Order: sequence, then structure tokens, then C-alpha cells
Amino acid sequence: MIYVIGIGPGDKRLMTGEALQAIEKADVIVGYVTYIKLIKELIKDKEIVKTGMRREIDRCQEAVDIALTGKNVAVVSSGDAGIYGMAGLVLELAEKSDPELEVKVVPGITASIGAAAVLGAPIMHDFCHISLSDLMTPWEVIEKRLLHAAMADFVVCFYNPRSKGRANHLANAFQKMMEFKSADTVVGIVKDVGRKEERKIITTMREIDYELVDMTTMVIVGNKETYVKNGKMITPRGYSL
Amino acid sequence: MIYVIGIGPGDKRLMTGEALQAIEKADVIVGYVTYIKLIKELIKDKEIVKTGMRREIDRCQEAVDIALTGKNVAVVSSGDAGIYGMAGLVLELAEKSDPELEVKVVPGITASIGAAAVLGAPIMHDFCHISLSDLMTPWEVIEKRLLHAAMADFVVCFYNPRSKGRANHLANAFQKMMEFKSADTVVGIVKDVGRKEERKIITTMREIDYELVDMTTMVIVGNKETYVKNGKMITPRGYSL
Repeated sequence: MIYVIGIGPGDKRLMTGEALQAIEKADVIVGYVTYIKLIKELIKDKEIVKTGMRREIDRCQEAVDIALTGKNVAVVSSGDAGIYGMAGLVLELAEKSDPELEVKVVPGITASIGAAAVLGAPIMHDFCHISLSDLMTPWEVIEKRLLHAAMADFVVCFYNPRSKGRANHLANAFQKMMEFKSADTVVGIVKDVGRKEERKIITTMREIDYELVDMTTMVIVGNKETYVKNGKMITPRGYSL
Repeated sequence: MIYVIGIGPGDKRLMTGEALQAIEKADVIVGYVTYIKLIKELIKDKEIVKTGMRREIDRCQEAVDIALTGKNVAVVSSGDAGIYGMAGLVLELAEKSDPELEVKVVPGITASIGAAAVLGAPIMHDFCHISLSDLMTPWEVIEKRLLHAAMADFVVCFYNPRSKGRANHLANAFQKMMEFKSADTVVGIVKDVGRKEERKIITTMREIDYELVDMTTMVIVGNKETYVKNGKMITPRGYSL
């Protein structure tokens, strides 16, 4: 049995009961070293397989191999395992190795939802998730999605917004979207959601300081109606008050 | 103090620890009668204010008024309170009544994430949320978003997909999207996520039986690469296996 578990943004209180139970049932915990650290109190008596970044396939295959020996394995990742996480890969690899092997995806609080709660209520209306990582998606596909998202006036949540190797991705994305979105559109930034370093910034597309953004940051760009009041970023649903 | 709490899809094990704690701290629980029922075991000793549907403004104003008397109030809704939920409205009304009144949004597992875990891994790549309710959003705006979502090849999660009063909305939405999405695109349907009546169906845009869909149903339409294997709906991230 493999549980693919989303542990949420990092604060144990944002995990679901089902995630806690699944970790308890597991004999072996498999995950990227940063995520293992986040839950270290919960897994003191477990066998632990830590792996580095960009070794997703090896990590998931190892989880499958261990599960095939009859052990219960928990593959942990931050946020929700089904959103740019490990769920797809584990399902694909498990099916290849043994279609009978049971895989259970345990949902978690993804970064956009965690960040939205900190900012106020920015995703109260239609929104989309776009990852700015072009490691596995051609930049032209990303750019096309940015343009359509802007034309449709979606609120946009950016995953993997900016890293050392992709320092200009967010600026390029904003540039593209500003063909259709006003430069005054509200932007909410949350760093390290749910962790003790958590920090919130509310700005606009024109005024954003891209240096504030790294891979542990969630960036949410509002729609035409998004506004800021009393330090909160709010996208109205449409009630007449 | 007002906590605006997303209680997840309905199974207590899908609530976060923070949501449980906030409910415990509350003196008064405010919510639509269906949600109150879902958590009735947790709130036996609390003052409860139940309201009917479509009385969102009254419900939230009542929560604000009670909080202004110094009590801790929990406004509960299913899924995540910040996604087509009560968070925006409570923040807006609280600010109007007393900008000093503290409002804390407590994140929850929204229906798309809960349904995705049941289906497999359908939202592993860029996706959007679109509500098909035209009570507060003109149908032209919804239609525009459907077209752009289809052109951008987003995975699409439908909220409020179909009700008695809007029996044809989902069929109309699919018709529009099929201008740009293949009729063979995989569609996942989950009814009553996380409740004992939970039911999962995997079909295509061409073959869907719209009668299976009602307001308690999540409908997820895949992208070009979404496939079905071993009963699971998977949108690949792009790893070469």
C-alpha cells in the first residue's frame, strides 16, 4: 500500500486528520529532505528514505519497490500531492510495476489556498493555477496560458514563480499578462505560508519587487474587481452590499 | 473574533487541525443547515445559528453582529471558505461594521482537491476553477472563460455545475469548450466527495450523462494529455518514464 500524502504548507495544524492517520499507518516514509524535516516529530519511529531535489522518478520508484515487499509506504510532499506533486508519478509507476498495488492519494492544503487565507479572500471567484517552471513544459505553452488567463480575467496563482535559474520568468509573465490586465491589478505575495517566517506583501503588477519572490513564495494576481481594504486582498463574488 | 472556516468536503478526517481548533474556540457557530449537520458531533455544546440557502449576506452580517458583542464566532462552510465560500463576504461586512474586528480565514480542502484525490491525479498540471452559477456572474463572462480555458488547454474544474434551475449549463459549457477541446477529452465526475454516498465516474466529453451531475458533484475535464489507466484519471506532469 502506498499513501501519497500532501502535508499542506508546512504547519502541522494545516494537515488533515487523514494525512496524520496515513503517516501513522506507514512503515516507511519517502520524501524530499525539506518535507521530511517539516514532519520530523511525527515520524520518529519510522524508516525514512530521504532524497534530493529533481530525483522525483527515483524517489517514487523506490517507494513502489518498497511497497511491493509488503510494507506500507507514505510518499510525502508539501501542499497537495495532486497539484504539481507526486500523485501522478506514483500512480504511473505503480501501475507499470504491479497494477494490483494499491495507491491512495490523501489530499492536502495546496499553497494557493494557504496563501489566500493569509491575504484575505483573493480567490473567491474563478481562478487558475499556472506553474512558471519550464523544466517540463515548453515556455510557449506557459505563455499561451498566461495570455488566455489574462484575456479571461481569471485570478492567477503562480506556482514555481521564480528561482535563481529562472530569475526573469515572473517579470516576463507579468509583461505578457499586462497586454490584457491593468498594471494596477492587485498582487498578493506570501512567503513561507504557515511557517514561522511567513510574510505577506500586497502590491500591484506595476509596483511589484520581483526580488521578494523565490520558490517558496506564492504570487496571486487578482482580477479586474480585486481590491485592497484594511490590509486584506479581496476578490468580490458579486453580492450587492 | 470571527473564524471563517472551510470544513472540507464533509468527512471529518479531511478537516485540518486548525479548523478543529477554531471550532473548539468558538462560542457560536453560524452556517447553512447542511454544513451544520456535517459537523454536529463537534459542536454539541455550542450556540448554533442555522440559516437557509441564498441568505449569505444575512448569515454573515449576523456573525459580525454577534462577534461585535465580544463572542468568538465560527462561520462554517464546506470545502475552503475562500473559494466560492463566505470568506470574502465576512471580510467585507466586518470591515464595514468595525475595521478593528479580527477575522481569521482557516483554509480547508476544496471540492476540486478532494475529487482529484478520488479520481487519481487529474490536476497535476495547470488548471482552472470555473463556477457555472450565473446568479451573480453574467453568462457571457462565464462563456468567455470557458473558451479561453479550452484554448489554453487548461484542466477545468467545475463548481456549481448543474442544478434544477440550471439543468443545461454543463451541457452548454461542454458544447462551447468542444470548439477547442476534443470530444474524447477525459472527464472525471465525483458525487458527494468524502461522504458515505461518494461515487466516482470516468467518462469523456462526448459520452457524459449529464443527469449524473447535480450541485453536490465535482466535474473535472482533462487537458489534451489526460488519460485513464487502471481506473485512474491522470494528467501527466511531463516526466519521461
